[in-house]
Amino acid sequence: MAFHIQAELRYTIQQRSTMLLNLHALSTTNQILSDERFTITQGATCEFLPQQPGESRFARLDTGDLDHLLITYEVKAETNPGSRLIRQISSIPVGGMQRSHLPFLFPSRYCQSDRLGRLANRRFGHINHPLAQARAISDWVFDNIEYVPGTSDATTSACDTITQRAGVCRDFAHLAIALCRALSIPARYFAGYACNMQPPDFHACFEACVGNQWFIFDPTRLSSPNGLIRIATGRDAADAAVATIFGAMQLETQMVSCTADRFTPLGQSELDGKAILLEP
Amino acid sequence: MAFHIQAELRYTIQQRSTMLLNLHALSTTNQILSDERFTITQGATCEFLPQQPGESRFARLDTGDLDHLLITYEVKAETNPGSRLIRQISSIPVGGMQRSHLPFLFPSRYCQSDRLGRLANRRFGHINHPLAQARAISDWVFDNIEYVPGTSDATTSACDTITQRAGVCRDFAHLAIALCRALSIPARYFAGYACNMQPPDFHACFEACVGNQWFIFDPTRLSSPNGLIRIATGRDAADAAVATIFGAMQLETQMVSCTADRFTPLGQSELDGKAILLEP
Amino acid sequence: MAFHIQAELRYTIQQRSTMLLNLHALSTTNQILSDERFTITQGATCEFLPQQPGESRFARLDTGDLDHLLITYEVKAETNPGSRLIRQISSIPVGGMQRSHLPFLFPSRYCQSDRLGRLANRRFGHINHPLAQARAISDWVFDNIEYVPGTSDATTSACDTITQRAGVCRDFAHLAIALCRALSIPARYFAGYACNMQPPDFHACFEACVGNQWFIFDPTRLSSPNGLIRIATGRDAADAAVATIFGAMQLETQMVSCTADRFTPLGQSELDGKAILLEP
Amino acid sequence: MAFHIQAELRYTIQQRSTMLLNLHALSTTNQILSDERFTITQGATCEFLPQQPGESRFARLDTGDLDHLLITYEVKAETNPGSRLIRQISSIPVGGMQRSHLPFLFPSRYCQSDRLGRLANRRFGHINHPLAQARAISDWVFDNIEYVPGTSDATTSACDTITQRAGVCRDFAHLAIALCRALSIPARYFAGYACNMQPPDFHACFEACVGNQWFIFDPTRLSSPNGLIRIATGRDAADAAVATIFGAMQLETQMVSCTADRFTPLGQSELDGKAILLEP
Repeated sequence: MAFHIQAELRYTIQQRSTMLLNLHALSTTNQILSDERFTITQGATCEFLPQQPGESRFARLDTGDLDHLLITYEVKAETNPGSRLIRQISSIPVGGMQRSHLPFLFPSRYCQSDRLGRLANRRFGHINHPLAQARAISDWVFDNIEYVPGTSDATTSACDTITQRAGVCRDFAHLAIALCRALSIPARYFAGYACNMQPPDFHACFEACVGNQWFIFDPTRLSSPNGLIRIATGRDAADAAVATIFGAMQLETQMVSCTADRFTPLGQSELDGKAILLEP
Repeated sequence: MAFHIQAELRYTIQQRSTMLLNLHALSTTNQILSDERFTITQGATCEFLPQQPGESRFARLDTGDLDHLLITYEVKAETNPGSRLIRQISSIPVGGMQRSHLPFLFPSRYCQSDRLGRLANRRFGHINHPLAQARAISDWVFDNIEYVPGTSDATTSACDTITQRAGVCRDFAHLAIALCRALSIPARYFAGYACNMQPPDFHACFEACVGNQWFIFDPTRLSSPNGLIRIATGRDAADAAVATIFGAMQLETQMVSCTADRFTPLGQSELDGKAILLEP
Repeated sequence: MAFHIQAELRYTIQQRSTMLLNLHALSTTNQILSDERFTITQGATCEFLPQQPGESRFARLDTGDLDHLLITYEVKAETNPGSRLIRQISSIPVGGMQRSHLPFLFPSRYCQSDRLGRLANRRFGHINHPLAQARAISDWVFDNIEYVPGTSDATTSACDTITQRAGVCRDFAHLAIALCRALSIPARYFAGYACNMQPPDFHACFEACVGNQWFIFDPTRLSSPNGLIRIATGRDAADAAVATIFGAMQLETQMVSCTADRFTPLGQSELDGKAILLEP
Repeated sequence: MAFHIQAELRYTIQQRSTMLLNLHALSTTNQILSDERFTITQGATCEFLPQQPGESRFARLDTGDLDHLLITYEVKAETNPGSRLIRQISSIPVGGMQRSHLPFLFPSRYCQSDRLGRLANRRFGHINHPLAQARAISDWVFDNIEYVPGTSDATTSACDTITQRAGVCRDFAHLAIALCRALSIPARYFAGYACNMQPPDFHACFEACVGNQWFIFDPTRLSSPNGLIRIATGRDAADAAVATIFGAMQLETQMVSCTADRFTPLGQSELDGKAILLEP
C-alpha cells in the first residue's frame, strides 16, 4: 500500500538551540520510500546522524540566529505488512531471546514494568500464549483507559495512567508496553504516521516480540495496522520524540497528513486469531 | 458482645521524645468500656488530651530520660453493632450532608480521590445506591489487591496500591476510602482491635457515610464487623496512627490480643443485602 | 485597613451539579465585614452551612436546571493584623500544643511532610526558634521555587514541587507547610484575597503555629501580610478550594479584585525579626 | 593496579527460573582479566550472550530443577585509569556528540531528567564547563543525600531521592545521572567492584561524557576511582542489575570481596581540577 505523508512544524526560537528531529520515515525492506523532500528555513543547518539498520533517522538541527523556523517533510512510503496466525507462532522463553531484545524487557522512564507485575499476572497471567497476552493487553488498555487529550503531559508514565485511566496514544502505548514487560514479553514503542487518522497527528503504538518477531498493536484503535508508517522505535517516548530540544524554542503550529488512495482498514475477520507484523 | 483487649508496646529511646499515643478504645453509646488499665514505665509522664465526643483519646507521653519504655493497655469492651437493609437506607446527595461529614469527601494524604475519579466511575458508577457502591468497592479491593505484609510502608498511598496491587490492612482501607470519595461518598479510616484476628495486630478498616450514618467495611476480610472495637477515626492513617513520635525512639516489640467468649463471625446470610453500623 | 473585594465566577453547566463554594470572607474579631452582597443566577439555590467560630463559610449551591451560572460576591473587610518580635514568642513543644492544633502536624494530601523530614532537618534543623524556622522556610521556598503559572495542576503536591521547582501560590504554600510539619511545627493553608495583587486572583499563603498563635507567611511575596483577607483555613487546598464541584460544570471566566485606599505594603524594617498575625 | 575479586551468591529456588546474570568484569583495553573462574551448582545450565565491544557480559542461567543455587565468581583484574585536567577537556555541544551517546541524554526509569531541569539549571547552570558541572553534581549529591541502607528499594528513583534525601550507592548514582542529563550532559550508570569498600558489596557510580570521553564519579565517596573494576554500563540500574530474575527465586546470602596489594586511594591533590577516566 502506498501512502502520501506530509508534515509541517513551525517554531519560534527564544535562543539559539539544537534539535534532535525524528520525523523521517524509516527505510526498510518492507517500507520503501520515494519522493522524499525535507526543507528547513534558510539560516538553520541540519546534519543526519549515521544510523545502523533499523535505527531512527535522527536529524540534528542548529537554529543558528533564526527567530522562526519552518520544517517541512514530505514522502511517499510503500509498506508491506504481514500477518500470522497467533497459534502458529512459537513462544520463546527469556532463555532463547536474542540479546538485542533483552533491553525491551527492562523498565524504562515511562514504562515502569517493575511496579506492575502483580496487576499483569493477575489479569493476563492465565493466558497461555504471549502473543495472545499482548493482544489481551492491547484490548484491556482500550477498554479501560479513556482517550482524552489534555489529561496527560510529557511527564506522564504508565503508573500515572493506570491510576488516572485517561491519556492519549503515547500513554496507551506506555501502559501496554509496561504490562507486556511485566510478563517477560519484550515490548517497544512505535512512533509513526497513521493513514486517515482523525484528527491527523503523529501516532504512537507498541510492538511486542514473540518468537523473535515484532508484532504491532494499537491500543487506541485509532489506526489500522496496515495503515502505519514507522518513524522510530525505542524503549518508550524518551527514545522516539519527534523533537528533542536543547535550548529554548516553542512549537507554534503543527500539521500532519497521511493519506492513501482507496485505503481499507483491516476488518475483524482479518484480525481474528492473527497478529500483524510491519516487517514480516 | 464483650471483648478482652490487651496491648503491649516496647520501645528503645535514642533521645527524649514526645509521643502521641492512640491505643485506647473509644467510649461511646455502643462501645462500653470497663476494667481499663494503662501503665507506662516509671519516669515517663503522660497526659490525656481533652476530647470532644467521638474524638480519639490521644495520650501525650513524654519519655523523660528513659532508655526503654514499656506501655501496657488492657480493657474490656462491650459493643453493640447494628445492621440495616441496604435498600432501606436512603441516599443523601452532597446537598444534604452534614457539614461535619464534608471533610471526608476531600482527598487526604493516603487517599488521593482526586486522581481516581475515572476508575471509580467506570467500575462503580453504574451501581445505583451509594451503600451498594461502598460494598462493591470493598469487595473489589478484596478481589484485586493481594494481602502481602512487607510490600508497603508508611509512605504508601492509594495511588501506589492501585498500581502495585498489594499491601496490608491500612493500604486496603486507604484505597477503598479513595474510591468512595471519588464517588462523592464520605469515607473515613477506622483504626481498632479485631477479635481473633490472625496474626493478632492492630487493624484498619473503613467506614462509608450514607444517609448520615457510618457503615463499616473490612476489605481485607480478616475481621468480622461484629468483632471490631474502635480506637480512632480519621481522614486516613495520618490521623489515626497508634503512635506518632516526635523525637527518636524505636518500637522493639508489640503484642496485641483481642478475644471473646464464644465469638461467632457474621455469616454470609447475615450480611446479604445488609450493611453494618458500629454506632447504630 | 479597609478593603473592597469583588469576585465574579461564570460557569457553564453540563449536568445538574452541587457546588461547595468557599469565597466568602470570614467574619472574625480582627476581620470585620460590611456591605456584603452575594448573588447567583435565578434558578440556582444556595444554602449556607452552619459553622463553628473560625470555620469556613461553605455555601452549598444547587444548579437546578441552569445551563449557565453567574456568581457575584462583594464585601468590605476591615482587618487588623498584629506583629510580634520573633524572639519574644516562646516556643511550645508538641507536649504543650492545643489538641486542635495537632492535625496540622500530620501529613495531608498535598503536604507529604512524612517524606520531607531529612530535607527539612538538614536545611532548617539548626535554626533554634520555630518561628525563625518558619520564616526561613518561607524565604527558602521563595528563593528556590519559580513562580510559573501552568507548571502545576490540581494534583500537584509538595513532593512534585520539591522536584520540579516551579508552581503557583498554592504550590508554594503546600511545600512550605510540608516543611514546617516535618519540623513539628503545626502549619495550615490560608486561602484569601490579597490587596493589589498582580494579576488579581484568589491567593494562597500559609500560617505556622508557634506559642499557640498562628503567624502568616507568603512564600510567593506577591502579597503583603497587611493586605490579606481570610476566606478559609485548612490542612491544604483540599479543604479550602474556592469551588468543589459534584457533577459536571466548567469555569468559564473569573474576575477577582481587592483594593484599598492608600494601601502601603509592609516594608522590610517592619518585618525584620518580626512575624505577623492576622488574628493577634 | 591489580585487583583480586571474589563473589558468591546463594539462592533458594521456588520454581524453575531463568536469570540474567551480570557479575563478570568487563574485558577492555584498560581492564585486563586473568585467572577467571565461574561456577554454578551442577544441574543449572548457563550460556554467555554474544556481546559487542563494551557491552556487558550477560550470562543467561537456567536453574533446571534445582532447589538451591550457588554461584561463585573469581577473577584478577588489572586496570589502568587515566586523569585529565578539566580545563583541558573541550566541551562538545549536543551538536557534536556521537550518536551512540545520545540515548544517555534521555530520561530513563530511575533517572527522570525531564523533571529536574529547573533544579539542575538553578544549582549548576552557572558553572561554565560540563565536566566541572558533573563534578559539582557529584559533590552536591554527596553533601545533600544521606547514605542510609534500608531507606530505598528497587523502585526508588531520582525523584524519590531528591525528595527523601537518603539512599544507597544506586540512588546516589541515579540522582547524579538525572541532574547531568538535565544539563544536556550524557551520563550513564556504572556497576562494578570497588577495592576495599566497607562493607564489601557490589558498587554503583556514574560516568559523564564530555568531549566524547567518559569520566567517572562516585557521589558516595565510598570508593576511589582508581579502585573501580567495571562490570556493566547502562542507562540506569535497570540495564545493569547483578541479577534479573524471570521466575521465582530468592537471594539468601551474598559475599563480595575486592582487594589489592598496597592499594592507595587517590588523594585530594590528585583529584584537584582533574577528572578520571577508566578507559583513557
